[in-house]
Amino acid sequence: MSSPKRIGSIIVVTGPSGVGKNTVVEQVLDNVDGIAHSISITTRDKRPGEQEGKDYFFRTRAEFEKLIAQNEFLEWAEFAGCLYGTPKAWVKEQIENGLDVILEIEVQGAMQIAKQCPESVLVFLSPPSFDALKERLNGRATETPEKIAVRLEKAKNELTQRHLFNFEIINDNLEVAVSNLIHIIHAERCRILKAQ
Amino acid sequence: MSSPKRIGSIIVVTGPSGVGKNTVVEQVLDNVDGIAHSISITTRDKRPGEQEGKDYFFRTRAEFEKLIAQNEFLEWAEFAGCLYGTPKAWVKEQIENGLDVILEIEVQGAMQIAKQCPESVLVFLSPPSFDALKERLNGRATETPEKIAVRLEKAKNELTQRHLFNFEIINDNLEVAVSNLIHIIHAERCRILKAQ
Repeated sequence: MSSPKRIGSIIVVTGPSGVGKNTVVEQVLDNVDGIAHSISITTRDKRPGEQEGKDYFFRTRAEFEKLIAQNEFLEWAEFAGCLYGTPKAWVKEQIENGLDVILEIEVQGAMQIAKQCPESVLVFLSPPSFDALKERLNGRATETPEKIAVRLEKAKNELTQRHLFNFEIINDNLEVAVSNLIHIIHAERCRILKAQ
Repeated sequence: MSSPKRIGSIIVVTGPSGVGKNTVVEQVLDNVDGIAHSISITTRDKRPGEQEGKDYFFRTRAEFEKLIAQNEFLEWAEFAGCLYGTPKAWVKEQIENGLDVILEIEVQGAMQIAKQCPESVLVFLSPPSFDALKERLNGRATETPEKIAVRLEKAKNELTQRHLFNFEIINDNLEVAVSNLIHIIHAERCRILKAQ
């Protein structure tokens, strides 16, 4: 029946570092139309194979702090000594054009979005177990043992926060995890928005 | 991560008579595991091809009224002169065993479920247009013109109630409608239940 033009959803995919957010999100983007991937700005070092403007916008800490002062972030967070943020204006433009926007962000940032944009869809990606997460991080050749230890300590706390989110997907089987995120995105497109 | 045993969801599929609830629900049941179909009790006449205990339990008005008095219904409603109701104990047992239960019911009944079971998932199936609904009902050889007129009048009112539900699926293309209901069911299985 005649509905007003749909506003897109902000789909936040979060979870501990190493849980596989990037892989799940990439596969979802390959399989769903009408969805855009928000590219974060970060001060962390570029990993081998990462590209400016595709994986992240890489900026200095001074440049990042200037953007914070100009209120240009939807959320930002410091994690393992690096800053990460989501550019606000771009996300707003996409959802007003009816596109969904997927944000793949750290747990701290996701909690900021939950407060600022309560209508956003918050998905927590969990590892099948803490040991599985540990193995995955140790398998990453790009991180020092010290950085891994910091990430694991952080992950422990983050896992206790997952009840604050709308959906939990356990990344035990990649194909199932990808399907579940696709189900959530399509279901949200059928959601009836309550009058504000 | 270690989650408590999941309680199933009550998935309510409602919408005006003639919108195609039955066809959509049948196809979903054929394609989703872990879901049970609640069979309603009704006082309406059996249509050709319908089977006792498969499509409905067919009862007399006196028998139905006795069940109301015994508080045996999760919801019941009168529609076009006939009574329809959902047996309570059976639904409760299924969801406690972790199965989802799909109820395919009239709009009045769905609104009772919304009040009694606020955690249930309320899906409104809409026709692409009112004229499309009219054509569909006229194509049903099993109904008298008088009964169709009553159903259409009722449908007009029901369509104004769809904002009371969680999801709207427009039954324009059967395959898409079925997919959307499947997406909603799987998404709900990932939902994190908030502490009561």
